[in-house]
Amino acid sequence: MRTRAAVAMEAGKPLEVMEVNLEGPRAGEVLVEIKATGLCHTDEFTRSGADPEGLFPAILGHEGAGVVVEIGPGVTSLEVGDHVIPLYTPECRTCEYCLNPKTNLCQSIRVTQGQGLMPDGTSRFSMLDGTPILHYMGCSTFANHTVLPEIALAKVRKDAPFDKICYIGCGVTTGIGAVINTAKVEIGSRAIVFGLGGIGLNVIQGLRLAGADQIVGVDLNPDKATMGKRFGMTDFVNPSEVSGDLVAHLVELTGGGADYTFDATGNVGVMRTALEAAHKGWGESIIIGVAPAGAEISTRPFQLVTGRSWRGTAFGGARGRTDVPRIVDWYMDGKIEIDPMITHTLTLDQINHGFDLMHEGKSIRAVVEY
Amino acid sequence: MRTRAAVAMEAGKPLEVMEVNLEGPRAGEVLVEIKATGLCHTDEFTRSGADPEGLFPAILGHEGAGVVVEIGPGVTSLEVGDHVIPLYTPECRTCEYCLNPKTNLCQSIRVTQGQGLMPDGTSRFSMLDGTPILHYMGCSTFANHTVLPEIALAKVRKDAPFDKICYIGCGVTTGIGAVINTAKVEIGSRAIVFGLGGIGLNVIQGLRLAGADQIVGVDLNPDKATMGKRFGMTDFVNPSEVSGDLVAHLVELTGGGADYTFDATGNVGVMRTALEAAHKGWGESIIIGVAPAGAEISTRPFQLVTGRSWRGTAFGGARGRTDVPRIVDWYMDGKIEIDPMITHTLTLDQINHGFDLMHEGKSIRAVVEY
Repeated sequence: MRTRAAVAMEAGKPLEVMEVNLEGPRAGEVLVEIKATGLCHTDEFTRSGADPEGLFPAILGHEGAGVVVEIGPGVTSLEVGDHVIPLYTPECRTCEYCLNPKTNLCQSIRVTQGQGLMPDGTSRFSMLDGTPILHYMGCSTFANHTVLPEIALAKVRKDAPFDKICYIGCGVTTGIGAVINTAKVEIGSRAIVFGLGGIGLNVIQGLRLAGADQIVGVDLNPDKATMGKRFGMTDFVNPSEVSGDLVAHLVELTGGGADYTFDATGNVGVMRTALEAAHKGWGESIIIGVAPAGAEISTRPFQLVTGRSWRGTAFGGARGRTDVPRIVDWYMDGKIEIDPMITHTLTLDQINHGFDLMHEGKSIRAVVEY
Repeated sequence: MRTRAAVAMEAGKPLEVMEVNLEGPRAGEVLVEIKATGLCHTDEFTRSGADPEGLFPAILGHEGAGVVVEIGPGVTSLEVGDHVIPLYTPECRTCEYCLNPKTNLCQSIRVTQGQGLMPDGTSRFSMLDGTPILHYMGCSTFANHTVLPEIALAKVRKDAPFDKICYIGCGVTTGIGAVINTAKVEIGSRAIVFGLGGIGLNVIQGLRLAGADQIVGVDLNPDKATMGKRFGMTDFVNPSEVSGDLVAHLVELTGGGADYTFDATGNVGVMRTALEAAHKGWGESIIIGVAPAGAEISTRPFQLVTGRSWRGTAFGGARGRTDVPRIVDWYMDGKIEIDPMITHTLTLDQINHGFDLMHEGKSIRAVVEY
């Protein structure tokens, strides 16, 4: 079949919207009509050429929602008409990682996914001239139709709006999951969130959901304060307005350091601040952000020996097929909010404008509706 | 009263054995006759002048065992004749830290302890000419008699030999506790221990006690292999004999990385290797060693985002008054071994020779018996 897609032809160039060929699903695969997709910084990380592992030409996008159009042989957990959210971290439920309760990093199709290919080592996408186009993060939601492995699709309720729940495919789950699955924040905790973008705001509402007593947001942009408070932030700190040491300021503000700190900036200097602002004895710092290639975190080991721990999270520690449908329920039940974060809705033809909005800091989330 | 002590008069100089004045215990304090004390690298770190927080003149030593000789006003949990192990990490059971189950870092007397003073801000030790001598780590076990706060003494059974259980005052508890209290290693785990000295060997026997399946010891000194195996090590790796990348070698040896890794070297480069040899998804790396002043650990944040965690431990996460008596029981019951690690027994007059043995790598633990 043919479908419309925004293709990243080469690093650093705008996406090109065009018709492409899409082969049907093979064994264990599913053809999905994407109804909406968010634009995430990770897409931009690859599009811009900053990602040293970026491959081209490719169809980017990994934060989508859609409907099952066709299932390949052997698919048993999904049927035509099911509503689904693609999972860049799949959940096979059989690999060593899925069977270990300590991790969500299913490894069953990791190698081919990293190569931009389906598990059988081939691509379903090609140019009209036959040139293969690579998949991206196993999702490629910047195409109106895409093919995914069954294990990389979360089945969700049919009454949930695609243009909102697509965000659960990455940002919402990453932020809320970092709180709930990775940090396992307890009621009454004090927390600091660095970076109040599309991830950080979801960390904040995750903390509110978990019953944190103090939720400090840190951002250089004073405009972020209003939105932070909207989602549960109790204190706002603008580092440019702090005279003296930021760590000392945060430690004082939180009565000795935070029980949990979260980096949602990807800046390794901020990651260090986040660790050192965690409470002596028991503070945990969780890295969510993706750092530039080659960047390293550092600190004195004394920070750890005196009881802080340094951890990280990917996809919020969520097992997608299990956890994503629950988060959709939370949204539909009003336990979490998404609507105010979807600041812009675009057509596929406007997708490059969405990246402009991201760079200008004007959007929290821009969503493309097909 | 007067007692004999090895006094560190100034940084970098040998200890001087001499008679000193010792005041009796004040309120909440206890006079202890030290029967035996181990020589630990931390004493040497301070004696040598490498410790930027070292203060002189001081009576070093923090790994002792002895008998209560006199109690000060208000002391209720100890009486004359009790056998005790001094605790450089006290356990007041009332501070914010003691009341938080996530930490053992009692802060109740930390400030004065760091200044080499008793909790009332004074020293009990002085030269015969009246010059004050500072306490060290709240213990000063290089004196035949010393005064400690009641909250810094663990009461232990009277049939346990002083010249062995003194080692539980630091090395044994630090190593075993890192496994049991900090890492909470599960039965069947795979682990790597870097540095097979007086701490590392206790990590190894802690892992054996915890039921680890694979216990890899890493040390540049091939002579350490025999002793490591003696305490439960299953594999020995000498980095100088590994061609190629040490992390890759260790990851292969442990079938994908270790569930738990422990640094008992204090070398920040080794700490990085330890983290990166931990298993993707769930591996935890625990820093035990004390790094040189100013040294920093570093890694790519990707190591944490993909599921490794970096933590530290002090005094093995043990709450001394509660945990140390249990570890003495374990020794007396044969659950753990100490005797083979006490490689040298000295008199107080020979104490500087003990540090020579440490530098020459000839001792695991040298113990001074009074």
